[in-house]
Order: sequence, then structure tokens, then C-alpha cells
Amino acid sequence: MPLTLSTELLELRTRHPFIIARGGQSEYRTVMVKITDDDGHEGWGEAAATRFYGETLDTVQAALPRYADVLGDDPQQLEAIEARLEAALGRNAAARVAVSVALHDLVAKRAGLSLCRYWGLDPAAAPQSTFTIGMDTAEMVRTKVLEASDYPVLKIKLGGDRDRELLETIRSVTDRELRVDANCGWTGPQAVAMLPVLEEFGVTLLEQPVAPHDLEGFRRIRRHARIPVIADESCVTARDIPALVGAVDGINIKLAKCGSLREALRMIAVARTHGMMVMVGCMIESSLGITAAAHFTPLVDVVDLDGAALLSQDPFVGATIDGGQVRIPDGAGLGVSRR
Amino acid sequence: MPLTLSTELLELRTRHPFIIARGGQSEYRTVMVKITDDDGHEGWGEAAATRFYGETLDTVQAALPRYADVLGDDPQQLEAIEARLEAALGRNAAARVAVSVALHDLVAKRAGLSLCRYWGLDPAAAPQSTFTIGMDTAEMVRTKVLEASDYPVLKIKLGGDRDRELLETIRSVTDRELRVDANCGWTGPQAVAMLPVLEEFGVTLLEQPVAPHDLEGFRRIRRHARIPVIADESCVTARDIPALVGAVDGINIKLAKCGSLREALRMIAVARTHGMMVMVGCMIESSLGITAAAHFTPLVDVVDLDGAALLSQDPFVGATIDGGQVRIPDGAGLGVSRR
Repeated sequence: MPLTLSTELLELRTRHPFIIARGGQSEYRTVMVKITDDDGHEGWGEAAATRFYGETLDTVQAALPRYADVLGDDPQQLEAIEARLEAALGRNAAARVAVSVALHDLVAKRAGLSLCRYWGLDPAAAPQSTFTIGMDTAEMVRTKVLEASDYPVLKIKLGGDRDRELLETIRSVTDRELRVDANCGWTGPQAVAMLPVLEEFGVTLLEQPVAPHDLEGFRRIRRHARIPVIADESCVTARDIPALVGAVDGINIKLAKCGSLREALRMIAVARTHGMMVMVGCMIESSLGITAAAHFTPLVDVVDLDGAALLSQDPFVGATIDGGQVRIPDGAGLGVSRR
Repeated sequence: MPLTLSTELLELRTRHPFIIARGGQSEYRTVMVKITDDDGHEGWGEAAATRFYGETLDTVQAALPRYADVLGDDPQQLEAIEARLEAALGRNAAARVAVSVALHDLVAKRAGLSLCRYWGLDPAAAPQSTFTIGMDTAEMVRTKVLEASDYPVLKIKLGGDRDRELLETIRSVTDRELRVDANCGWTGPQAVAMLPVLEEFGVTLLEQPVAPHDLEGFRRIRRHARIPVIADESCVTARDIPALVGAVDGINIKLAKCGSLREALRMIAVARTHGMMVMVGCMIESSLGITAAAHFTPLVDVVDLDGAALLSQDPFVGATIDGGQVRIPDGAGLGVSRR
């Protein structure tokens, strides 16, 4: 019997509007994917579309039936199924990874192991996660920073026109570790000019200062930077990594970019081989999507998995980042249940 | 309770003395590693030492007790255990991989899956394997080629002083596909001079024509070659791959070089990312060691897993290459049993 796929719309709302260099909002809709096998095992995944990568709720809902058609009847054949998914419809990584995650959940459940342990990893090796402070008014930024007092490391969204002011505002209320994500908001020279400012405010890591294809900008920044510079929008799949060698210190893996849990593991292998740092990030998504990424955090250096922690309510219980520490559930598969 | 490790000496004998550019012999001793968990599950691996990579039977027997000390009590923590093995004693890849393989056998047995399926691979996707004709007198080479009539693709060992004669001898008795392995036996200019000869005899692939560190030699050969050029001795672990980009068409993975099944999978990911072909090879070893490598052949292009097929008797039943087709056993774990 072929595996069957069904979907469910998830309506998410962030505690505060979540604004980055490209804009923002407070209501998000994602799609829950459920894949069922003959024995009644059910695997779950979540598709969190991002327009920046060419996906919307509608494209996700259009892509999933195509993926459902090529699942076959043996969830254990992950490599072959993922190849069929990509052949059936390329890109559409958020939709595709929801299927990949649901299959992995299913397979690990059948083996009676948490996905982390199925992969041979130690859940106790999961690192800390940052918590993100989006762009906002000075007053709201202060409020958010105080609300986030449990998190020892904050990630600040810069790349707007009030970057220095934002840093000043945050430093007026906290001396915690700060990492910065400019989401392609600067040019190379702007980023170089910002480096002393970041240093002045004790920023410890800089993510995606420039446009995705501006590798020359990255190289220029890295020549001047004393902190690690990480590629996010510039690094979608493993194929992007060789060109980034020497231009950045590390890469940020997101499931909604790379489209496959197996590809995420390949990206880690490739980045490590090139001596790069590895970071894992997320979209605004529920604990279902976050937990899938949490399971491979024992292999990474830097974690930003606050997508569900930013929500005002979360339909699922799974991995958590309370107090900044990633905690991977030990139930079989993803270990995610409905709240 | 900590995992326990025990060993058993295996005495192997090849049907004919197996001679390559560095010499050869007909008697081989390898070490079987057995790792047992609390529940009485037992995982097996095999250490096939090669002096070229700094290992002998004695170094294997000296290394294994050090590895036994750091196994811990949870075989599922493959990533952490492999890191401890390497920290306890680096290099010693043949000894180390026997432990890695035994742990993987154990973990897949506990999950009730063949290792291939545990990894998400399709055993039916395993490719054909070559069968190797070692160096010998013209008469013996003819005998060996005729004995190997079941194998549609032969691998010829060159790099000696009678290369053309060997090719002529083989072509006098067969028109099957031929691949060539020079085992570092040529200089760059010698290899370039050999290319038209290889072409004349219809050779389809050239493995390790020059010395391990002669990347300039590789580049020179590749500029002239119309057939894929593969690095074997030049590519020990994934860390060697970036330097080989542009110099070769692919890499040959051997467990006794890379020291870990997880590293073998990482090497495949890295090679694929760089657009390289992937080959898997072996040492002279029993079906125990061969089967471990067979389980990941669904991910590779070119297979040379004839190490056990060259033996006059084999203590184990596992993967086979009868008729040239790799067949992966479907029992749990490696699926290997004693003959």
C-alpha cells in the first residue's frame, strides 16, 4: 500500500510583529504534513513558506499533492524518495522538507528511537539557542529584551536605517551576548563601516551582512572582521558551499531552504570538511518544524531555533529552548505531540 | 554496563598470490571485532591492516584494546563514540573501522533493519562490482581472466614494467570492459604516455596513476585523459577532497583508509557536492569487511569489492558479487553469518 499524505493548515501568531530588513508581520500560516504507513504509524512535518525563497502558502499547497504522488510504499527508502520528490518538483524547499521530515519521523518511530538517536547523535550535546529581537521602536525593543531575560544570547536583526540606535537601545538594558543578522541589508562597504560599531557593542557574530551573491562583499568584510561571518541567504544547499570557502567563516542551515533532512546532514559534512562553522536557523514556525531542526543540533556550533518561542501560542509540544538551552525530546521519531 | 569488545584472528588465503605495483602475497591475516551490548546483541567488524597505510596485524592488535576502553555503554551514540575512538588513538583506520562497523552492525540489528535500509538506502540500487586481475605471468593472467568469466567488468593492476604486455595478454582472451589501477606506479609523464595505450585497449577508467601527493601529475593526466581519473591513495578521508577538486574526476573510498562508516558517508556527501564520481574499494578481507562497504554502494558509481571473491575460502557469508552484481544481504545489521 502506498504511503498516504494529508495536510492541515496551522495558524500561527507571533507575540510581537516580527520585523527584519525585508519587512515583517505577526500572522503566519504553515502547513502540517502527515504521512501514514500500512501499520498505522504516522509521521509529521511542517512547511513554513517564505516568499524570499519563492514560496507562499499557496505554492506549498500546490506542491504537496505532487510530492504525495511519488512517496511509494516504503518509507525506509529515504534516499530514493527524496530523489523522487526533487525530480517531481524542484525548489519548493519548505513544502519538500515537510515531507522529508514526516518520513524521518515515521522511520524513527518505526525503529522506536528518537530521530537524534537514530542518527547516532547524543541529545545532551545540543548547544544553546539564541533568541531573536526583531526590529521595532526603541520602547518595544527594550520591552522585548526584558521579556527575553531567560535567554543568555540574543540575536539582533539589523540592516535597517537605525542600526546604531538599535544596538544602543539594547545595550541600555542588557549586557548579554549579542549576535547580529543583517539579512542582506548592507552593501560590502556599509558592512565594513559597521564592523567597528558591532565591535564597540560587543557583538560576537555577524550573519549575512550583504546580498546573497555578493561573495566579494563577504570577502572584503571577512578581511576586516574579528568576529565570525556566517552565510545564510547565500547558502541554500550544499552545492553553494564550495564557492563560499574563504569568503565566510560558516554557514547557516535552514530546513526551509535546503528542502531535506538528508541534505542538511550533507551540508554539515561539507562545511566541516572545509573547516567551516555550522549554524542552524529557522523560520517562524511551530514546535513541529523547530523540533525537526533541533534533532541535528548536536552536530552544529550555533543555534537559532526560536521560531516557536516567538509565538503567542504553539499547537505542538516538542523541542524547547527555555533558558536558551536546546532540549531535544526523547520520544520516538521527532517526539512531537499536539498541545 | 559498558559495551564489551572481543577479537578473533582470521586466516585468509587468496586463490592466487595477489600482486600489485607495491608487491603482494597469498596469505592474509585480519582481525574480527565483536562488540556485545547488555541485551546480548552482538555487532561484528573486520580489521584488514595494510602496511602502506601504517598498519600491521600487530598494530591492529595493539590499537583495539585502546578503542575497547572508550566504547561507553550506549552504542546508539555513534557520533560521540567515533570521536572518542579517534581521540584515543588517531590513524589506525583499519583497526578503528572494525570497531565502527561492529557498532553499526549492532545498532542496525537493534533496530531490526539491514544497515543499508537503516541508512535510508535501497539495496536494489547497488551497482556492479569489478573483479581484479593482479599482476602475474602471461599464462597465469590468462588463467585468471578465464576463471573470472562471470564478471563483466575487470580491473587490471598496472604500474609495473610490463603494462603493455599485460593489456595485450588480457585482450587476447577477453573483450570485457577493463578498468586500470596503477597504484601510484607511474610518474605524471609516464601516465600521460600511457593514456593512448589505455585508449587503444579500450580501458574505461584509470585509478591512482601517480604518487599520493602528486596532484600536479593528476592535473596533467586529466588534461589529456578521455576517461575518468580516480584518486585512491591520494584520498584517505574527506579532508583530502577539497585539494583534489579539479585534479581528478572522482575518489575511491575504502573503509580501511577512512576509519569510520560515518566518515565514508561524509566523503560521499563532500565528493557529490564537488561534482565528483564516487568509487568504493576494499582490501583483501573476508565477506565480513566487504559487506560493511557493500551496504553503502547504493550511493556510489563504481564498485570494486572483490576482496572476498579473491579468497580460496571465506569464513563468512554476506554480500556477494556473483556475476559482478553487488548483492546486499537483507538480514538485520550487516546480515553477515559464519559460513
